[in-house]
Amino acid sequence: MKTALITGSSSGIGLGIARAFAQAGYQIALNGLEKNGPEIADALAKEFNVRVIFFDANLLQPEAIEAFVKRTETELGGVDVLVNNAGMQFVAPIEEFPVQKWDMILALNLTAAFHTTRLVLPGMKARKWGRVINIASAHGLVASEFKSAYVAAKHGLVGFTKVTALEGAPHGITANAVCPGYVDTPLVRGQIADQAKTHGMSEEEVISKVMLQKHAVKKFVTTEALGALCVFLCTPAADLMTGTALPVDGGWNAQ
Amino acid sequence: MKTALITGSSSGIGLGIARAFAQAGYQIALNGLEKNGPEIADALAKEFNVRVIFFDANLLQPEAIEAFVKRTETELGGVDVLVNNAGMQFVAPIEEFPVQKWDMILALNLTAAFHTTRLVLPGMKARKWGRVINIASAHGLVASEFKSAYVAAKHGLVGFTKVTALEGAPHGITANAVCPGYVDTPLVRGQIADQAKTHGMSEEEVISKVMLQKHAVKKFVTTEALGALCVFLCTPAADLMTGTALPVDGGWNAQ
Amino acid sequence: MKTALITGSSSGIGLGIARAFAQAGYQIALNGLEKNGPEIADALAKEFNVRVIFFDANLLQPEAIEAFVKRTETELGGVDVLVNNAGMQFVAPIEEFPVQKWDMILALNLTAAFHTTRLVLPGMKARKWGRVINIASAHGLVASEFKSAYVAAKHGLVGFTKVTALEGAPHGITANAVCPGYVDTPLVRGQIADQAKTHGMSEEEVISKVMLQKHAVKKFVTTEALGALCVFLCTPAADLMTGTALPVDGGWNAQ
Amino acid sequence: MKTALITGSSSGIGLGIARAFAQAGYQIALNGLEKNGPEIADALAKEFNVRVIFFDANLLQPEAIEAFVKRTETELGGVDVLVNNAGMQFVAPIEEFPVQKWDMILALNLTAAFHTTRLVLPGMKARKWGRVINIASAHGLVASEFKSAYVAAKHGLVGFTKVTALEGAPHGITANAVCPGYVDTPLVRGQIADQAKTHGMSEEEVISKVMLQKHAVKKFVTTEALGALCVFLCTPAADLMTGTALPVDGGWNAQ
Repeated sequence: MKTALITGSSSGIGLGIARAFAQAGYQIALNGLEKNGPEIADALAKEFNVRVIFFDANLLQPEAIEAFVKRTETELGGVDVLVNNAGMQFVAPIEEFPVQKWDMILALNLTAAFHTTRLVLPGMKARKWGRVINIASAHGLVASEFKSAYVAAKHGLVGFTKVTALEGAPHGITANAVCPGYVDTPLVRGQIADQAKTHGMSEEEVISKVMLQKHAVKKFVTTEALGALCVFLCTPAADLMTGTALPVDGGWNAQ
Repeated sequence: MKTALITGSSSGIGLGIARAFAQAGYQIALNGLEKNGPEIADALAKEFNVRVIFFDANLLQPEAIEAFVKRTETELGGVDVLVNNAGMQFVAPIEEFPVQKWDMILALNLTAAFHTTRLVLPGMKARKWGRVINIASAHGLVASEFKSAYVAAKHGLVGFTKVTALEGAPHGITANAVCPGYVDTPLVRGQIADQAKTHGMSEEEVISKVMLQKHAVKKFVTTEALGALCVFLCTPAADLMTGTALPVDGGWNAQ
Repeated sequence: MKTALITGSSSGIGLGIARAFAQAGYQIALNGLEKNGPEIADALAKEFNVRVIFFDANLLQPEAIEAFVKRTETELGGVDVLVNNAGMQFVAPIEEFPVQKWDMILALNLTAAFHTTRLVLPGMKARKWGRVINIASAHGLVASEFKSAYVAAKHGLVGFTKVTALEGAPHGITANAVCPGYVDTPLVRGQIADQAKTHGMSEEEVISKVMLQKHAVKKFVTTEALGALCVFLCTPAADLMTGTALPVDGGWNAQ
Repeated sequence: MKTALITGSSSGIGLGIARAFAQAGYQIALNGLEKNGPEIADALAKEFNVRVIFFDANLLQPEAIEAFVKRTETELGGVDVLVNNAGMQFVAPIEEFPVQKWDMILALNLTAAFHTTRLVLPGMKARKWGRVINIASAHGLVASEFKSAYVAAKHGLVGFTKVTALEGAPHGITANAVCPGYVDTPLVRGQIADQAKTHGMSEEEVISKVMLQKHAVKKFVTTEALGALCVFLCTPAADLMTGTALPVDGGWNAQ
C-alpha cells in the first residue's frame, strides 16, 4: 500500500487530488490550514476506506515541513508520492507589489516544494521508486500582467521539476509539473475578486473576458480531472514521463 | 460504442495503441502495410471482443485516405478518436538528403494527418465530441542532426495539433500531440542500423551512446505506455487538455 | 565582401531584409515574383553601392531553386548568408482547407527552405562560415485557428532550423529562426482582408481585435527591425546563437 | 544621454555588458563586491569617456538595492536600461542542498531582480521608455542535475521577465531574458572546480565532457557577445522584441 503526501490538500485542487489518490487506494497525508482538517481527513478515510492523517503544518516554516514529512514516514511508512500543491496568489503591478507578498509567494509556491522534495527523496531512493508531482500552473509556462510573484514562482517550480526529474532518473523516481489553467476553486474565486478590483470590472466580466479569455475551451478545469491526471502519472504507463510540464488549460498554451 | 481510427497500426507503436483502445472497448479501424493485416485485425478482435476492421490504405495517396475514412464511417458508424501515428524516418546530412525522401516524410508524417483530420472533423463536430491524437516525437520539440525531414515534419505536426485544438475547442473536440523518445519498435530498430552506418559504430554503441544518451531514464518507451496515455486522453479527465505536446521521453526535453 | 541570398525579397519583409544587408555592405541575390524585380535590384544597388542581382526563380520548382543558387554562386562568388523568407498564407477551417493550398504552403514555406539550405551548405562548409536565417513566424511557436497549413509549415521550419544548427555547428555555420508577429506588409494586408471575411468584421476591427490582439505592444513590427536583427545575427556577437527561434512579436509568446 | 544600471558588473559577464554600454555612449551604474570597484569604474570611464559610478550594494539586502537605485537616479538622472546580471551558483544533490544556499540563490538570482525592477519602473514609465534585460541562463529553459536552486531561480527569472514585458508594454518598456550557455567567467571556472569534485573528473574532462557537452558549438560564449546583444536590445530594431528568452548557448536548447 502506497502513501501520497499532498500539500495544501484540505480544500480546492489539493483536496481533489487527495480524493483521487484515496479512491485509487493510497494512504493519504493531508495538509492545510482549514481548522476542520481532522474532520475532512476522517470523512475521506471513511469514504474510500484508506488511512488518512491530517497535518496542519505551516509550509512557510521549514521545521514544520520537516516534522510533517517525518511523521508521515513514521505513521504511514514512507512517502511514495509527493504532490506539491500548496500555493497562494497576489495581484498587483510590479512597482506596487508588496515585498512581503513576493517573499511569501516564493516561499510557499516554490521553496516549500524544495523542502518537501529534499526530505522525501532519500526514502524514495531507498525504495527505488517515487513520484513527485508539482502543481504548477499555465503561469508556469506563460505570464499574465500583475502576477509577477506567482508567475516567477511557478516558472521556478517548473524548473525545479526538471532538476528533480534528472536527479531522480537513475533511481526510479519521476517528477512532473501539472500546469492547470483556471480551476474552479476558492483561490480562483479570490482571484476573480482581486482582478475585478484591479481592472474595474464586475466579477462576471472578469470570468468571461479575463479568466477564461485565455482558454480556447470555455470551461473551468475540474479538481477531479487534475486528480485523475496525478493518479495516471503514478501508473507504470507514465514511467518514462518525467521532467515534463503538462498543460491542462483548455488550449491556453497553444495560442 | 466509440470507434478509434489509428493510422500505421498493424505493427509497432500503432499496434500498441490499437490494443489499448480495443482493451478499453473501442471499435478499431486498423491500417498499415503489413500483408497479414486482416489476420492481425482478427486476432485483435478476438482477444478483446470488439469489432476491428483492417484497411491497407496507402497514406501517401489522399484518395486512399478518403476511402479509408469513409469506409470506417460507414462500417463502424463514425470516427470518434483519430490517432495519426503512421510515420517513416530517413537519416542523412541535409546536403545529401534525397529530395524524394524529404517529400515522402513530409507527406506521410505530416500531410497524411492533415487529410485524416480534415475528413473526420465534420463527423466529430456533428456528434459534438472528438479526440485527435497525433503521435509526434521528442523530435517534434527538439532536433537531432541528420534527421532534417523527420524533425521538420514532427514539429509541423505539433503545430498542426495546436490549430486543430483551437478550431475544435468550441465543438467538444480536443487535439494533443504525444512526443515519445525512443520506443522499442521496428522503426527504431531501423534507425539503429542507419545510425550505426552514419556514425561508424556498432549497433550496441548506438543504443547506449546515441539513442538513449538523450534519455535521462535509460529505458526505451513501451508501446503499452503510449497506448495507455492515448486512452487516458479520451477520458473526461482530459477534457481540458488540448493543444499540448506531451513528452514521453525519459527526461530528454528537460535537459 | 559577403553575399546574402534572400528569397521572396522583392517586396515586404524580404525587401526590408535585403535593404539591411545591402546597407551593411553585402552583395545581394534578390528574388521574387514582382515583374519589376530587375528595377528594384538596380535601385537597391545604386542606393547602397553594392552588387544586387535579381532572380525570378519560382520556389515551388526545385530546379528553379537549383539554378538560382548556382547562378548566385557563379556571379557573386558564393552564398554566405541565406535568408529563407518567401512564404504564403491561406485562411480556412481545416475541414474546408483546399488540399492544393496546403501542399503549396508546405512547398513554399518549408520545402523551399530545405532546397536552398541543402544547396548552399556545401559552399558554407568549404568556406567554414555561413549564416542561415529562416523567417518563421510567431506561428512557428504557437497557433491561431484557420491557419493550419501556415502554422504547420512554420513550426516545421523552426524544427528544420534546429537541425541545420546542429549539423552546421562543427563548420562555423549557424541557423536561427526569426519569429515575427504581425508585420505591416502586403501579406498581412491580405490576411486582414481574408480574416475580415472569415470573422465577418470590418478590416479595422480585424487589426485591433484580431491581429494586434495577440501583441502586448500594440504596434506592427517593421521590416527595418527584422532587417537589423538579421544583420545582427551575422555579426561575431551572434556566433554562439544558433538553433534558436527568436520572437519579434510584441510579447505575443509571453502570454 | 541614457544610463544603464547593471548589477554584478565589476567582473565577468556583467563587466562585459557594462563595457558594451559604455562603448555605446551610456552612463553606467556599476555594481559588485570587488573591493577595487571604484578603480574599475574609473578605468571604464576613461576608456570610453562616459560617466561611470560604482556602488558596492549588497543585493541580498533590499534597502541596499533601494539606495543603489535612488543614488543612480539622483547622480545619473534616471535608469533607462536595467540589466539584472548578478547571480551565484551552488552545486549539490537536492537532498543534500544546503537550505541557506537555496535561499541565497533565490534571493540573489531572482528576488534582487524583482527589487531593482519595481524600483526603476516608475521612472521608466514617467519617461515612456525603458529596457529591462535579465541575464538568465540556458538553465532558465532547461535543467542540469545538481543545480536545483539555480535552475529554479533562472526559470523564475524568465517568468518574471514575461510579466515585466506585459506590464511594460503600454509604456514603451520592453523586458527580455538573455539565456547564455557556458561563458568563460570566474563563475564558470568555479563551476568547473565544483563539478570536478561532484563527478570525480579532472577539470579538463569537465570542460569537454560536462560543460560544453551540451553546446553543439564547442566554444564558450564571450562576455563581449553578451554585451553586444544587450546593446542591440536597446536599439529601435528591438522595440517589438519583448517577453522573450533568447538563448546564446551554442545550440544547447535546440537538441
